[in-house]
Amino acid sequence: MFSSAVKQWEGGVSMVQGASRGICLEFVRQLLEKSDKGHVVATCRNPNGAPGLQELKNKFAERLDIHQLDLTIDSTIEEAAKSVKDNTETTLNKVQRDSLLLTYEVYAVGPILVVKHMWPLLKVGGVTGTDRDFAIVANMSARVGSIGDNGLGGWHSYRASKTALNQLTKTVSVEFARKKDPIVCILLHPGTVDTDLSRPFQGNVPEGKLFTKEFSVQKLLSIIMNAKRSDNGKFFAWDGQEIP
Amino acid sequence: MFSSAVKQWEGGVSMVQGASRGICLEFVRQLLEKSDKGHVVATCRNPNGAPGLQELKNKFAERLDIHQLDLTIDSTIEEAAKSVKDNTETTLNKVQRDSLLLTYEVYAVGPILVVKHMWPLLKVGGVTGTDRDFAIVANMSARVGSIGDNGLGGWHSYRASKTALNQLTKTVSVEFARKKDPIVCILLHPGTVDTDLSRPFQGNVPEGKLFTKEFSVQKLLSIIMNAKRSDNGKFFAWDGQEIP
Ligand SMILES: NC(=O)c1ccc[n+]([C@@H]2O[C@H](COP(=O)([O-])OP(=O)(O)OC[C@H]3O[C@@H](n4cnc5c(N)ncnc54)[C@H](OP(=O)(O)O)[C@@H]3O)[C@@H](O)[C@H]2O)c1
Ligand SMILES: NC(=O)c1ccc[n+]([C@@H]2O[C@H](COP(=O)([O-])OP(=O)(O)OC[C@H]3O[C@@H](n4cnc5c(N)ncnc54)[C@H](OP(=O)(O)O)[C@@H]3O)[C@@H](O)[C@H]2O)c1
Repeated sequence: MFSSAVKQWEGGVSMVQGASRGICLEFVRQLLEKSDKGHVVATCRNPNGAPGLQELKNKFAERLDIHQLDLTIDSTIEEAAKSVKDNTETTLNKVQRDSLLLTYEVYAVGPILVVKHMWPLLKVGGVTGTDRDFAIVANMSARVGSIGDNGLGGWHSYRASKTALNQLTKTVSVEFARKKDPIVCILLHPGTVDTDLSRPFQGNVPEGKLFTKEFSVQKLLSIIMNAKRSDNGKFFAWDGQEIP
Repeated sequence: MFSSAVKQWEGGVSMVQGASRGICLEFVRQLLEKSDKGHVVATCRNPNGAPGLQELKNKFAERLDIHQLDLTIDSTIEEAAKSVKDNTETTLNKVQRDSLLLTYEVYAVGPILVVKHMWPLLKVGGVTGTDRDFAIVANMSARVGSIGDNGLGGWHSYRASKTALNQLTKTVSVEFARKKDPIVCILLHPGTVDTDLSRPFQGNVPEGKLFTKEFSVQKLLSIIMNAKRSDNGKFFAWDGQEIP
């Protein structure tokens, strides 16, 4: 989850959740390196075990705050997480209650509760004097969460959780619009990106279709920075194309 | 969840889950009363506390089997269920981790695990000599689960769970088709039906738009009985219209 109250390029604040590794660590890096202003709040479960984040903290001490945040309540859930990783759902026979519930908690419940608690801050919206007068919530979804796009099957828990995240983000975007809150919610598909998450499946990715984090985040940041009010509730792929 | 191995009108078997009350009890009734053949397996959490089902058992002892089945593992979840009912999610501020997880477990995880365990039976498909050579899984969804149709917001947990059920059903339908299993999966929207579930919200339903269980189930049964192989993975409203 990536939230930005306006003006991040001129002293505003961006919050990036799950920032210890992968795509979201790269978001933090680009937000700090590509501008000489703007504050970043980065969260992860174990800041001390996040060397990439600590390195950035050394370089941008003033502009980076790191906070501990776990999207699941119960830390024994760690074990369940491991069992999910070890058990790729290629068939319905492998689908288990635990993995369905845990995946839902991490990918759908967590992000939406973060938005809930950030709402008072997001409501402040833009800062006068910039060209953007709203805050942005960008939730990281995945194309496999699109029902219309589901031609292959498999990945039951992950798919269902991302689909639910899409619905929750849509529901929230409707409420923000109705209340005239200066907040725009969008969903992003980063493409297939070379991270820990995709590593086990990279063998199946066609040549040229596995992106670096740098490339994907650069594309996604430009979508975020150029988002319009009318984009509220929409789902974009890394190349700016809308996903149904 | 409603599953029917072919030939239910000629001695086949239908399974109806959540059959103690509401729409699904009416399914059991119509399946028994509208034909003089066919077996029905009805499940609910507490068969002794289901007088409607017991009444049918007295009338159709030979053709009706009642089994106890709880879609959630943990019965302390009862309390959570109550708290969900007491707390209608009209705004993001009311959304809670517990209600998100519980609703997901009942509406998405439960039905898909039932399909998983029924799979070996469903695979048997049709019985030769009938005009239908496949089994049907009909999961009860709701129009509010459609992301494209979400213009009003609210009902976060319920919406997200139904959306996830739609995605899970779609994922399973893709696998059945790939394996050439003689199973067709469809999703149904019953309309707004006069049951315990809709009671608290019936005040907002326009005149003529609140259906009786009899009417809705009659429509849904005709969709189920007329389903074609090419309907696999589709979502239909009570009037036969496809929902995106
Ligand atoms: N990579 C792809 O090809 C791809 C494609 C489509 C969508 N996505 C989406 O992009 C997002 C980022 O993926 P990624 O590839 O960058 O994954 P990643 O490299 O595995 O990083 C995952 C991040 O999530 C954090 N996290 C995990 N469990 C958490 C919890 N319970 N509470 C808080 N934080 C938690 C991790 O922090 P810890 O250090 O605390 O574990 C880590 O920072 C995901 O939502 C993913 O679904 C990725
Ligand atoms: N009514 C409407 O307007 C409407 C509209 C759209 C969609 N739907 C959908 O249609 C379906 C049936 O709704 P309804 O209106 O008939 O509801 P209802 O009258 O409240 O009946 C609910 C049924 O679900 C069972 N159930 C609840 N929790 C369970 C659990 N943990 N394990 C197993 N069974 C459980 C109940 O059995 P117990 O006796 O064990 O509690 C009962 O038989 C639902 O999926 C609903 O979302 C209804």
